[in-house]
Amino acid sequence: MSSSTTPTTVYGRPVTTDGVPNLYAGSTVTPWQPPVPGIDNLGISSVDTFAVPGVGEYTVPFDGFVRVVRSEPTSQEWSNAEVYTNLIEMKMVGECEELGRITVTLNPSCLSAGQIRTPFDPYAGEGPAAKACRMAVGAIFDMPKLGMKLINKEPIILTIDDVRQIPPAGSPGKGQIYRMLPLHDSRRLEDAPVAYVTSLRFTMGGYISPEKMAAV
Amino acid sequence: MSSSTTPTTVYGRPVTTDGVPNLYAGSTVTPWQPPVPGIDNLGISSVDTFAVPGVGEYTVPFDGFVRVVRSEPTSQEWSNAEVYTNLIEMKMVGECEELGRITVTLNPSCLSAGQIRTPFDPYAGEGPAAKACRMAVGAIFDMPKLGMKLINKEPIILTIDDVRQIPPAGSPGKGQIYRMLPLHDSRRLEDAPVAYVTSLRFTMGGYISPEKMAAV
Repeated sequence: MSSSTTPTTVYGRPVTTDGVPNLYAGSTVTPWQPPVPGIDNLGISSVDTFAVPGVGEYTVPFDGFVRVVRSEPTSQEWSNAEVYTNLIEMKMVGECEELGRITVTLNPSCLSAGQIRTPFDPYAGEGPAAKACRMAVGAIFDMPKLGMKLINKEPIILTIDDVRQIPPAGSPGKGQIYRMLPLHDSRRLEDAPVAYVTSLRFTMGGYISPEKMAAV
Repeated sequence: MSSSTTPTTVYGRPVTTDGVPNLYAGSTVTPWQPPVPGIDNLGISSVDTFAVPGVGEYTVPFDGFVRVVRSEPTSQEWSNAEVYTNLIEMKMVGECEELGRITVTLNPSCLSAGQIRTPFDPYAGEGPAAKACRMAVGAIFDMPKLGMKLINKEPIILTIDDVRQIPPAGSPGKGQIYRMLPLHDSRRLEDAPVAYVTSLRFTMGGYISPEKMAAV
């Protein structure tokens, strides 16, 4: 299902999908235990705010799915384990009156990549140390009502804190956007940005079924 | 002086250097006024913290210069003006006992780009609205003592707030690093990161002379 375009922009470590099984609804997750490699098919919801200079600021709720391939963990022990991830597919759909229907997918020019590891500034609390999850993403925001596909040239850094299981299904996360993330018209990538993302909050869902994915 | 490699990773809008004059020590800056295009040759200092997994965390002070080309402003009026920037050269040198001497330059595979504009969440206060400055940077951290050149695959987002003049000489700024920014060994870019930047604070200096630049 993922694109065969070779990315020219690589935001992190590549992770192979060769021989890695797809995990759908019904798969189980064990807390505090590094899992064997898998392709996690997960629901996701997000609330993004777009600023269009001179026009206005619009907050749009999105729903959809992501497909994330996970590497072999670097250790069987939770506290030492690092896991590398690539976002290999994404589809989220949202709508607001002014911007119309918006479909968000991955930009095939980018390898969207991330990792899960114990942070250097650990979380407070007893018991095993929770991990930090981060993913750098290149996306396409298709806005047919405006006749534009918008593309980010700085990655969107999605983070989840206090990760106690892999994948961090059900966890809230945040796009680490400082004030504004420029979005460019895909037909005029060298021109000035036409819009900005000013805020992004998301929640990872659980494993979903191929039928639910097809219905997004 | 800048590299002739064509960047494969473009973090923002390209800005031409054709016919744009170099500005050195002695150039003046007028507050609240969008300037004509220029190549700003500015001093810079920075304090970066590096985490090396399993080894330690090291805070290193750097000094050096940047060369930033600025576009024609989109308006002659301060409040409406947007200015696009490319970082076309950088050299900063720092040292600590454990990591030895570190030289930071631009990664020629990346177009390091940014902009200055009025933020959508304006600063409080009276008078003209201060602007926000951001730059997405691909760098090389040369650490000969460790026998490694470290490269970031997510851009380092450098920001300066409360900008009242262009360039924002003398202003403090921050690297918007959420917990950790992965650094890869340039010879093993597809492997796990070998270190992380966990904090970065910088101060833009004023215009400097070609002699001072050559001495860095």
